[in-house]
Amino acid sequence: MTLHWTPSGRDGAARAGTLRTAHGEVPTPVFMPVGTAGTVKAMTADAVRATGARMILGNTYHLMLRPGAERVARLGGLHRLADWRGPILTDSGGFQVMSLAALRKMDADGVTFQSHIDGSKHRLTPERSVEIQRLLGADVTMCFDECTPFPATEAQAAASMRLSMRWAARCREAFLPRDGHGLFGIVQGSTFPELRAESVAALIGIGFEGYAIGGLAVGEGQEAMFATLDATLPLLPADRPRYLMGVGTPADIIGAIRRGIDMFDCVIPTRSGRTGRAYTGRGVLNIRNAGHAEDLRPLDAECSCPACRSHSRAYLHHLFKAGEMLGPMLLTWHNIQYYQDLMARLRSAILEGRFEEEAAAIEAGWAMTEEE
Amino acid sequence: MTLHWTPSGRDGAARAGTLRTAHGEVPTPVFMPVGTAGTVKAMTADAVRATGARMILGNTYHLMLRPGAERVARLGGLHRLADWRGPILTDSGGFQVMSLAALRKMDADGVTFQSHIDGSKHRLTPERSVEIQRLLGADVTMCFDECTPFPATEAQAAASMRLSMRWAARCREAFLPRDGHGLFGIVQGSTFPELRAESVAALIGIGFEGYAIGGLAVGEGQEAMFATLDATLPLLPADRPRYLMGVGTPADIIGAIRRGIDMFDCVIPTRSGRTGRAYTGRGVLNIRNAGHAEDLRPLDAECSCPACRSHSRAYLHHLFKAGEMLGPMLLTWHNIQYYQDLMARLRSAILEGRFEEEAAAIEAGWAMTEEE
Repeated sequence: MTLHWTPSGRDGAARAGTLRTAHGEVPTPVFMPVGTAGTVKAMTADAVRATGARMILGNTYHLMLRPGAERVARLGGLHRLADWRGPILTDSGGFQVMSLAALRKMDADGVTFQSHIDGSKHRLTPERSVEIQRLLGADVTMCFDECTPFPATEAQAAASMRLSMRWAARCREAFLPRDGHGLFGIVQGSTFPELRAESVAALIGIGFEGYAIGGLAVGEGQEAMFATLDATLPLLPADRPRYLMGVGTPADIIGAIRRGIDMFDCVIPTRSGRTGRAYTGRGVLNIRNAGHAEDLRPLDAECSCPACRSHSRAYLHHLFKAGEMLGPMLLTWHNIQYYQDLMARLRSAILEGRFEEEAAAIEAGWAMTEEE
Repeated sequence: MTLHWTPSGRDGAARAGTLRTAHGEVPTPVFMPVGTAGTVKAMTADAVRATGARMILGNTYHLMLRPGAERVARLGGLHRLADWRGPILTDSGGFQVMSLAALRKMDADGVTFQSHIDGSKHRLTPERSVEIQRLLGADVTMCFDECTPFPATEAQAAASMRLSMRWAARCREAFLPRDGHGLFGIVQGSTFPELRAESVAALIGIGFEGYAIGGLAVGEGQEAMFATLDATLPLLPADRPRYLMGVGTPADIIGAIRRGIDMFDCVIPTRSGRTGRAYTGRGVLNIRNAGHAEDLRPLDAECSCPACRSHSRAYLHHLFKAGEMLGPMLLTWHNIQYYQDLMARLRSAILEGRFEEEAAAIEAGWAMTEEE
């Protein structure tokens, strides 16, 4: 049986369910920590598991360059390499080719580019992207698409979206069906509702195991992002998982779950953790601020991670001031724990029909922030 | 009762015993991971505990500058700050003032220097060093001494050693006796046996809970180090613990245990781990070497650490090539695990009267090295 999603509860448009994959089941809504190059930065696989995370994301662009897709396959796949026993979703590489690679050259068939690491030349096409994701061992493969820049004119957005739809059909052709594995189509069309609707219709015509919303969180702002979700999500089949790519802050996530999104990934918790920003029940806290130097309270009294359970803000402040690796390690762990706890809390609320109350309570906590 | 050591077995000059401290008992011989600035670099306290480590070292010089000794005391001491429930030994700060601080000025009373971090001016005397170590909460306080440079003439070494002996008497005066806490004297005298003997006699005259051998592992080489131990250790009281400061490689440690040393600390396992060097039963392995790129074997098949239990050499190689923090994290963990396992193995061998067989077996394993 292919990868599939079964609903278990609904509150307004917010959905709770279970994603069934070759590497186990994942309760949704789910937040997938980003394991760019085969590691969630600054965390062991055991630590990622300890937060309750059940599914992670890997980046095709990074992994195809280093260690290389064929090498990962020879080493038994990404699951074995990274000691990640749960499901893995891989992106298609398209987004990072556009943001990281040098000397990109697009054509109707794909994109040729130079590695940002060593300048070596590479090519990605829909077929090659799907092949790489198979070599990595992805449970969820993403269609290779063009991430439309923001802002774009309607004509630019239309042309870009239609190219992505042609590529989506080629990805579907190239994808090898396997038990518990699936291919997700990606809705494009920038912030133009008609283009989003055209994109949804094209993808449904092809047929996918899940549908992602791409081209958001690229500078359009939360209001435009939510408006695009409002215009798009009702058009998607109710029995398929919906994934909002690259989003976001806790507030973004609550708003997107409210509108019917099931899956998320974002570098915010890991990247923020490395720079000393902690997400807590009382908003965001910058542990480098001098006010924490003698504060014996935990980062977040409600949190069960080692940073909060075993240490004071004063210690974490010291670690960051001293440039000790343990600072980023502990704050990354905390932020991933915060995101996982947030998802579990929202999921329970959906199942119990009190999503809005829970969201309001969480937002009221953030408003009690001590800083920023 | 003061901190004390009780013997439980002997094989030749090698000793097994138990160090009893305010924060629990420690089987000896013991290797103390170095937690310079209140963290064993790249490891959580839980990870350090998981290796079997029972005692760690903290650096007075680093901690007095940041976060500051009085601040550590206000925060409840180093144990609480770092979540380290076992005993902690602190050095006196003297060695690092000489190797790290700017604009040092020695006088008969102490040393004035500038912080390498912000240029601020500080002063260490025997009394202040002992006070700082008390503020940090050290179970074992080390005497403030002058680390004699190597090489030194006999006259230089004698003058330096005699200064340290005068300071040792002042440290003894300044030390506040507390249950389970103790003060260790430090034998100096460079590589001159007569000076070492004079230093031992001076320290025994003062009386300490333990005796350290200082001024070694500073460039004199293993042969001269062992010769100095041979000349010095028989002069020390048999009922007190003996600590060889800043040593060393696994081979150094075996040779020193053979001669009657009970305690060790060294940055080698942590620092090597961060640069990709792994200590294993088959010698030292540099994980960055291209030969590991597709090697599915663990670093060390005998090791139970997460790097060996869950990952291949190929993955660790990838992490270092990609500059991922998880590489240093896993290799540091592995090296500390290797050192702890080595100590446990040697201790059992002493208790079972087969120290030399065990040492020979370990050394035969290293000789089967695949590289370097």
